Amino acid sequence: MIDNLKFNEQGLIPAIAQDDDTGEVLMLGYMNEEALRRTLSSGEVWFYSRSRQELWYKGETSGNRIIVRSVWKDCDSDTILVKARPTGPVCHTGNKTCFFQQLTKQDVETSHQKEN
Amino acid sequence: MIDNLKFNEQGLIPAIAQDDDTGEVLMLGYMNEEALRRTLSSGEVWFYSRSRQELWYKGETSGNRIIVRSVWKDCDSDTILVKARPTGPVCHTGNKTCFFQQLTKQDVETSHQKEN
Repeated sequence: MIDNLKFNEQGLIPAIAQDDDTGEVLMLGYMNEEALRRTLSSGEVWFYSRSRQELWYKGETSGNRIIVRSVWKDCDSDTILVKARPTGPVCHTGNKTCFFQQLTKQDVETSHQKEN
Repeated sequence: MIDNLKFNEQGLIPAIAQDDDTGEVLMLGYMNEEALRRTLSSGEVWFYSRSRQELWYKGETSGNRIIVRSVWKDCDSDTILVKARPTGPVCHTGNKTCFFQQLTKQDVETSHQKEN
């Protein structure tokens, strides 16, 4: 299964972390093959940090780890979904989820106005 | 808000579609700026098809559209989350979600064995 995954030209695959108890989408990170192997083997989430260009054990610094419940791939094998239990806030801002800023129709209209 | 989004080198941003009623993660697609504008303006999900290299009104062919409830960006503005109501199965396979294939620890071990 893991051999058939489609990693992108940087050798990465996007991985969605979801709170398995609440259904909340927590964050999107990127995994290389080694990060995925470690995630599956250890039962805790590993990513590959694109900014630091290194393997990233989620929670290594913050202590807020993500405990794996199940790992899924999508129909065309180019996205991973990890259903999990976070041990604390996932976001570096202290928010439970990284998705706490809403976009609305007004954001498009404001954008358009700026262009005129 | 939309102006501050970080589109990648191909001008795309990953967008997660989630069933707002069940919490189920349905699919990950990619949006360019125009797809995001149309999604916010119309209240239905548009993506940019990387394979066809064109704007993609989700459900145009299948009739299975995704009706927007709310749109979110993540803390570093490089991922979109759309909470939505799908009008039918989202996946081209007929599954409700594209994430219907599980990966397990055995997949890693099998992979390793093949290498030896």
